[in-house]
Parts: sequence; C-alpha cells; structure tokens
Amino acid sequence: MEHDITEILGMIKFTENGLVPAIAQDFQSGEVLMMAWMNAEAIEKTLTSGQVHYWSRSRNAIWRKGETSGHTQTMKEFLIDCDGDTILVIIEQVGPACHTGEHSCFFTKIL
Amino acid sequence: MEHDITEILGMIKFTENGLVPAIAQDFQSGEVLMMAWMNAEAIEKTLTSGQVHYWSRSRNAIWRKGETSGHTQTMKEFLIDCDGDTILVIIEQVGPACHTGEHSCFFTKIL
Repeated sequence: MEHDITEILGMIKFTENGLVPAIAQDFQSGEVLMMAWMNAEAIEKTLTSGQVHYWSRSRNAIWRKGETSGHTQTMKEFLIDCDGDTILVIIEQVGPACHTGEHSCFFTKIL
Repeated sequence: MEHDITEILGMIKFTENGLVPAIAQDFQSGEVLMMAWMNAEAIEKTLTSGQVHYWSRSRNAIWRKGETSGHTQTMKEFLIDCDGDTILVIIEQVGPACHTGEHSCFFTKIL
C-alpha cells in the first residue's frame, strides 16, 4: 500500500456524520454498479481485507458487501476524487450488485 | 421524455438539504469523471436543456457545468438507482471534467 491507513483517512473529507460516498464500478465492463456510504472503519476494512465494506445508514452498522447474499465485491483499485469527498472503488462483482437482483442499481432510465 | 418533471422529482429521494448525489460517466470511455450534487432545479434544468446542471454547496447556487470554463457536459442518459437516492448521468464531456485540469476528478489512486 502506498499510504498507511491514518494518512489515507486524513486525505478524506467525511460528512459531519463521518461518512463519505463510494461509487462501485465494475473493473471489466466499466459499468457503475452502485453508490453506498463508507465510514473510516469501512474504508480500513476494505483496504486491509480487499473485500468492499460499506456503512449501512439504515442498520447503523458496518456491512461487508455480500456477507448475507454472497454477492461480494473484491477491490481492484481504490481512488479518491480531487477534493477527497468521494471514493471510487473498482471492483470485481460476484452475482448482481443490486439487492433487487438487477446487475446494477442504476436500471431505471429516466431519459 | 417518458416521465414529466413532477413525476421524476417524486421518484427521487432527496437529503434533508434537498440534494441528491449525481455521478457523471463518460458515454464513450465509461470513465467515471466526477460526483457532484443536484437539487430539484438542477435536475429540471438538466432534463429540459440537455446540459448538465449541479447545485454548488460552496456557492449555494445552481451551476451549469462549464458555464465559466467552457467544459460543458451534454446529457446522453439520465438514470436513478433502485432506491432513488443517487443519479447517474451519462454524458459527453468537453475538455477536462475536473477543475484541476485533469480529465477525471478521480486521479488519486490510493491502492
């Protein structure tokens, strides 16, 4: 790892609730699969385990993607944006990313 | 347009500040270029003009992407996610998307 965890967390601008949005993109197709939230612990667990973790705002708990469904996300790359307030994780998705069973959460086309 | 504006806005779950995150993805390369925020007015202006508009949280104002830089975003598709709390706009980007001059805002690779 190029940076240690403390340094990485220092580069990230969290909301007042200690969260940061994370976009998951398929490493092969480039498809944007979902957006969810991470807190510091989810970031640390993602970077150290290589398995993508999020913070569930509804359950108020750390959540390893796929822990119940089996639809895991293996991290390929972890990037932050220019002002450090958004994460982009490039991932390998097992099964559908969406809880509805759709491959991507963005299946509703408005225009 | 398949849906009218009132119907579309009713499908979107805004934060308590009346905002929703919007991911901009390049229609050709599939690259994720940036994430910014939209309010109801930005969504309406985006859908009716075809030019992507955001809400600037720092300036507290509607912002047509490229209005000063010329680095406009023309909307190709407008999608929402399964729970309606994130937007994905597929766009044609003129020039760099990032205010730093980088093509994408996600140029900082952590891992």
